Amino acid sequence: MHKETISFMLDFSRLEKQIQFILEIDKLKQVFRQTYLLDQTRRENDAEHSWHLSMLALFLSEHSNSPIDVKRVVEMALIHDIVEIDAGDTFVYDTVHAETQKAREKLAAERIFNLLPTDQKDYLYALWVEFETSQTPEAKFARAIDRVQPLLHNCYTKGRAWKAHGVKLSQVLERNKHIEDGSKELWEFMKIQIKQAVANGYLEDDLEKVKL
Amino acid sequence: MHKETISFMLDFSRLEKQIQFILEIDKLKQVFRQTYLLDQTRRENDAEHSWHLSMLALFLSEHSNSPIDVKRVVEMALIHDIVEIDAGDTFVYDTVHAETQKAREKLAAERIFNLLPTDQKDYLYALWVEFETSQTPEAKFARAIDRVQPLLHNCYTKGRAWKAHGVKLSQVLERNKHIEDGSKELWEFMKIQIKQAVANGYLEDDLEKVKL
Repeated sequence: MHKETISFMLDFSRLEKQIQFILEIDKLKQVFRQTYLLDQTRRENDAEHSWHLSMLALFLSEHSNSPIDVKRVVEMALIHDIVEIDAGDTFVYDTVHAETQKAREKLAAERIFNLLPTDQKDYLYALWVEFETSQTPEAKFARAIDRVQPLLHNCYTKGRAWKAHGVKLSQVLERNKHIEDGSKELWEFMKIQIKQAVANGYLEDDLEKVKL
Repeated sequence: MHKETISFMLDFSRLEKQIQFILEIDKLKQVFRQTYLLDQTRRENDAEHSWHLSMLALFLSEHSNSPIDVKRVVEMALIHDIVEIDAGDTFVYDTVHAETQKAREKLAAERIFNLLPTDQKDYLYALWVEFETSQTPEAKFARAIDRVQPLLHNCYTKGRAWKAHGVKLSQVLERNKHIEDGSKELWEFMKIQIKQAVANGYLEDDLEKVKL
């Protein structure tokens, strides 16, 4: 090839890596969760959930216990489930698969994030680890809304996923109480919703006395 | 009710409006587009598309012609199709429905955005208008990637949606050339993809001479 031809060619090698990543994550649209859409016609998938969660991040961030960088919460919401392309969705009340979840997800992160150029891979990995370890105010809030969204869906689908898996009140309280770490206000609000779900017969009360 | 009881009650009136909006937009998961998933099993919906587009915003923003506020591009990507809950998806090559599209979408914005508290409704409306009018560097880039994503899906599903609707090369070039307004680099890259799609027989060449 002549030198003058080469000089006119654009170098797309970085962009090509980014596009490979963009194409790969299309698979998240086929990872289905236990949560039902509000119209109850089907379960939702991880891509839809990630979008919905990002919308909660945008419009509910004022309820965070601490001041937060909303951009970072949205970014965590967008990327937090990508590892499930390989690792699959682990139902939040499934204690058996929860044991191997971390290892499966770590392998997935290494394969999928590595499609990106190194600097972006590092950024994404740090963001995902921040979400997983839940130490920063942003991660605490992101994890709070990550529980609020499926809770709302259960409350507004007459407890569809709870009933399908025999989930009871004590489990719902135990697995969702960390909402309080991100937002006391959202947890107070959700406890009212849960109480209403029990009153409506959507959720079985297995506690001697409901301590809400 | 006793005064002391009232003083202990939290005021959830603002949060309740936000939650009504969050519940309403679940419907975006049932608005289906013409674009196929890369595995070709089904068409994608607007919620999935909005998520995917937000990921393009996060990882491709360095290719914008001008410096941009990535947060704002992500926000536009997240909210740009919400109006389609009422207005439906208008296929980009559908010139008949395009005539009534703006009016239908404006009505939709007024109904759906209005579920939010006034300040957030105003913010959302301004964001959507910014995207629609495409004057700022952020909107130009958001609209560029909003074309790049379905173009990629067509190229990587052997032109599935193009073939289903008899879309030809001249239309693809005409309806997507504004990618260049947001990113010259992405448009150069996509022209190579389109050229390859023609060579592979995924897209019919209706131009005497392909001017790429």
